[in-house]
Amino acid sequence: MIYLDNSATTPVHPEVLTMLTDVIEQCYGNPSSLHHMGVKAERLVEQARKVVAEALDAAPQEILFTSGGTEANNMAIRGIVEQYQGRGKHIITTMVEHPSVFEVFAYLEEQGFRVTYLPVDEVGRIRLHDVEKAMTNETILVSVMHVNNEVGTVQPIEEIGAILAQYPKALFHVDAVQSYGKIPLSVRKAKIDALSLSAHKLHGPKGVGALYLRKQVVIKPLFIGGGQENGMRSGTHNVPGIAGLAKATILAKIEQTRRMNQFQSWKEQFIEAIMDKLDHVVVNGDQTQVGGAPYIINLSFPGMKSEVLVHALENEHVLVSSKSACSSKNEKASRVLSAMGLSDEAATSSIRVSMGYQTEQQDIMDCVEALERVVPNLQQVMKVRKK
Amino acid sequence: MIYLDNSATTPVHPEVLTMLTDVIEQCYGNPSSLHHMGVKAERLVEQARKVVAEALDAAPQEILFTSGGTEANNMAIRGIVEQYQGRGKHIITTMVEHPSVFEVFAYLEEQGFRVTYLPVDEVGRIRLHDVEKAMTNETILVSVMHVNNEVGTVQPIEEIGAILAQYPKALFHVDAVQSYGKIPLSVRKAKIDALSLSAHKLHGPKGVGALYLRKQVVIKPLFIGGGQENGMRSGTHNVPGIAGLAKATILAKIEQTRRMNQFQSWKEQFIEAIMDKLDHVVVNGDQTQVGGAPYIINLSFPGMKSEVLVHALENEHVLVSSKSACSSKNEKASRVLSAMGLSDEAATSSIRVSMGYQTEQQDIMDCVEALERVVPNLQQVMKVRKK
Repeated sequence: MIYLDNSATTPVHPEVLTMLTDVIEQCYGNPSSLHHMGVKAERLVEQARKVVAEALDAAPQEILFTSGGTEANNMAIRGIVEQYQGRGKHIITTMVEHPSVFEVFAYLEEQGFRVTYLPVDEVGRIRLHDVEKAMTNETILVSVMHVNNEVGTVQPIEEIGAILAQYPKALFHVDAVQSYGKIPLSVRKAKIDALSLSAHKLHGPKGVGALYLRKQVVIKPLFIGGGQENGMRSGTHNVPGIAGLAKATILAKIEQTRRMNQFQSWKEQFIEAIMDKLDHVVVNGDQTQVGGAPYIINLSFPGMKSEVLVHALENEHVLVSSKSACSSKNEKASRVLSAMGLSDEAATSSIRVSMGYQTEQQDIMDCVEALERVVPNLQQVMKVRKK
Repeated sequence: MIYLDNSATTPVHPEVLTMLTDVIEQCYGNPSSLHHMGVKAERLVEQARKVVAEALDAAPQEILFTSGGTEANNMAIRGIVEQYQGRGKHIITTMVEHPSVFEVFAYLEEQGFRVTYLPVDEVGRIRLHDVEKAMTNETILVSVMHVNNEVGTVQPIEEIGAILAQYPKALFHVDAVQSYGKIPLSVRKAKIDALSLSAHKLHGPKGVGALYLRKQVVIKPLFIGGGQENGMRSGTHNVPGIAGLAKATILAKIEQTRRMNQFQSWKEQFIEAIMDKLDHVVVNGDQTQVGGAPYIINLSFPGMKSEVLVHALENEHVLVSSKSACSSKNEKASRVLSAMGLSDEAATSSIRVSMGYQTEQQDIMDCVEALERVVPNLQQVMKVRKK
């Protein structure tokens, strides 16, 4: 079986699993307990905080552990808006965010906030002059993802940060769930106030993530209780999960540059082979290494249905996804692809092929071959049906 | 080392760890994915939902998975209050709740809700006539814990449910974090609308819990996004954690009755020995098996400081806690013990000895012996200091 759905979730790295098992067996204390089993657990949490902080160019006390990316996004956006709504009621995001950002903005719009949804160009990137145009003296939050989860397009985070620096009232949140540990980003350089990440997209465990929150920023917490994480996120720490996130971060760092270059070359080979061998294929997103994540490939096969393609490839033992996992169970056109200007036909016929640190070149070549077997057959069936 | 801080957190059962490892290795898909790795993961989640539902006498679709007890408590209370505030602005809880309930009520009070904090008697139990007296036509929520986390007192949940049945506007939430898998409770019989539980108090993994929510009840979600858990709790499922919670539930069920009887008899032996051998000891809470959780013992040593006792016992290789782990790092008197009418001196000198499914009789006897060595020495030091 060839697993190419790593943007949905990744297999846990064997060394992360060993770490999880060790912590569960040897360090089961509650970090809030006074005795040494508690202190030992607390120390692990603090070590992990340093590792995550370093990966983001942040300070350890700026890292808050969460149950994952969705919590981090909700906590940042709702927490900032509730805290700072006295300063203004205008907030900005993009048309291509993950549901855990996009739907929170839609909810806040219902609650009376004025929301600007920035459009994107044909590769899925927002334009800096649209950001500039949207900014007002009432703007308190701008939330832009780093790497798009469906097409891999990289947003110009540093450039946006530079624009926002002129608006001291507006905080900058970045959803980095798809880029963390893969594409470097310095929260200092990009002048980011809050950044969300998740472990399970990086061969870490499910059920854990983190929110970077700049020292000077305060949020209204989502979880109130025991006062953990400086009162901003109560609840017993998921110690093994947190240690696993740190381990995954360290492992990713060692391989990062080499792997990203490899992915880019495999991606180029994949696209070249597909374009060469199949008719009526559209490659979505930015194909340059700087503009598109090397580990995400998004293709449309106009006239087909994404779901049919996913299942046909599965019969060939290749696992890919239709759009994002979090919205793959409704059959509507992808919001992201529609925002990029694709027709409904193209936006309902896309598949996403996403690589992880366990992916090998042969997997990508096997996927090409599977598509070569599957697509012409399906295209034939479609033609017959149309007659 | 003798670990008697199981109300703070428990060691993971070896069979639960095996389950976690197996799921992580073999079933890493995202339950929201369309392919078979997704379906396999989704099936595990649905099996777990059945197991948890059965343990509570609920229906599977009434179980929502969360990141733990704190999330479940916040989600239930804030979610119910936000959803139903149009019906009334009065809410009721008790003076002895866990911070993840108590502090949420304090927050809602700031937000303009009228809150009644029910007092407790000298063993920490609320009085039914206080509940009756507090109820109004504006009451939309009553939240009462099942087993108190510091003294183990069991609240009369079924009787409260019967009273609340006469107030169809008022929903009933129960924090069952300290009782789940230990003391049976049927959500049907007790007419409960929402109930919180956590895995790591029952030899399951940290970072996972659940909220039972009666079919007819709707809540405003804390996490908005991909729409998982019927839109009430978005976020990629923590599949291994959820499977681990189910495994811990199954394991606890097999042993439950036998173990509770054992704990009760050890608790009685412990208290008898302590009362026999030490002066100036006060046992807090209800000592009957029906009225107090058999696995929690709470003692005060007036004149001493809880923290000093915890560390002195640790030197004897016995790990206990001062009050609840979630508030053990501030040195104020226990809110729970103060509510029970204890003096400040008694309420700042308590320790909690809590048993888990790995505890053996010898551990309890060793704890008695450690106290016999430690307490008279400390009492001697105190006397000298006073002179």
